[in-house]
Amino acid sequence: MSKIWFTQSVSADGYSAGPDQSEKEPLGVGGESLHDWMVGLKAWREAHGEEGGEVNASTPVVEELETGSGAVVMGRNMFGPIRGGWDRDWRGWWGEDPPYHGPVFVLTHHPRDPVPMEGGTTFTFVTDGIESALKQARAAAGDRDVAIAGGAATVNQYLAAGLIDELRLHVAPVVLGAGERLFEGVSGRTLEQVAVRPARRVTHVTYQLGEVTAPAV
Amino acid sequence: MSKIWFTQSVSADGYSAGPDQSEKEPLGVGGESLHDWMVGLKAWREAHGEEGGEVNASTPVVEELETGSGAVVMGRNMFGPIRGGWDRDWRGWWGEDPPYHGPVFVLTHHPRDPVPMEGGTTFTFVTDGIESALKQARAAAGDRDVAIAGGAATVNQYLAAGLIDELRLHVAPVVLGAGERLFEGVSGRTLEQVAVRPARRVTHVTYQLGEVTAPAV
Repeated sequence: MSKIWFTQSVSADGYSAGPDQSEKEPLGVGGESLHDWMVGLKAWREAHGEEGGEVNASTPVVEELETGSGAVVMGRNMFGPIRGGWDRDWRGWWGEDPPYHGPVFVLTHHPRDPVPMEGGTTFTFVTDGIESALKQARAAAGDRDVAIAGGAATVNQYLAAGLIDELRLHVAPVVLGAGERLFEGVSGRTLEQVAVRPARRVTHVTYQLGEVTAPAV
Repeated sequence: MSKIWFTQSVSADGYSAGPDQSEKEPLGVGGESLHDWMVGLKAWREAHGEEGGEVNASTPVVEELETGSGAVVMGRNMFGPIRGGWDRDWRGWWGEDPPYHGPVFVLTHHPRDPVPMEGGTTFTFVTDGIESALKQARAAAGDRDVAIAGGAATVNQYLAAGLIDELRLHVAPVVLGAGERLFEGVSGRTLEQVAVRPARRVTHVTYQLGEVTAPAV
């Protein structure tokens, strides 16, 4: 059966972005360091139209990020900045050929027509909530998995609603101290640790979601 | 050269204890689950005078906990409850033969004479701050390492003061949602990931402390 998984880099203290996110620093102060493990990899560079790069224990993780799902859901912040509404020229952070190569559903309060990109990516804007976005993503994915790509605020809503099957965390060796925190507002969950993959400058940990063990505090 | 290391079990969301710590639940609501990986191990049971138990990839971690340091520093909460002063009959949570087998320095505002226990453990109470406790522990340890045993509030003070060389975290597959959080008040640190050991119901991650990369936020 197809799964709903969340994948994201987080700091050792649990932040998926640092404080003071801005157009200049979309991942907040210090947040870029969460991706240090990834940006030098051949698999990453190829997906972004660049040559060269390293192959290491993180390579299959990046390949899975890029081809492992049939549809993606992301929060508005992850797609781009709003200034009282969408700037119609804004087409995401990733250039004309984003690394998704399939349907991407963007959660937002601001309606916008779908934005088709090169390489098969289409950004579709969903204004009626997380369950609707997931339903559309499931339909688009068919029998493939759905990836919730972040940010933390988005996945925390899905987690609190019990809609995530699996967490694929890439724990970076950095302490951000503030920012957007994974698991905020989520409590009393046991997880099942199903895979741990140590790699250069990162620990990849996969958890499956277990039952709710205690009421939210 | 001897090192100062911190060792503790933490939840996937970074808590070393759950909310509402009490004498009945010293690790707070849900906090006991942080030690699920450990309590069934032969190495743990032997250190607590019990027979039987499992041997797995966590066994060397528990052995290192018990014999890897020449002296231990802990916060008051970790030693026991205060009710307007020490209850002179309180001799820790661990029975007459605690698993430390050496000098333990307890940070507290309430003076108390040292408490010698069976098996070589002596609890010494330090009322003049974290640096004094560390200095006494270093002197007692000689050329061996000093372990900061927790809780999070204690190690966070040492981290903020730049006095820790190494973090040995045992990340348990549970989300506590509230409680005492590691790295609270610490920010802008890069860590060096020096060892990752997956084991049953836990991921052991060792970080060395790097330079301060950003001001505290």
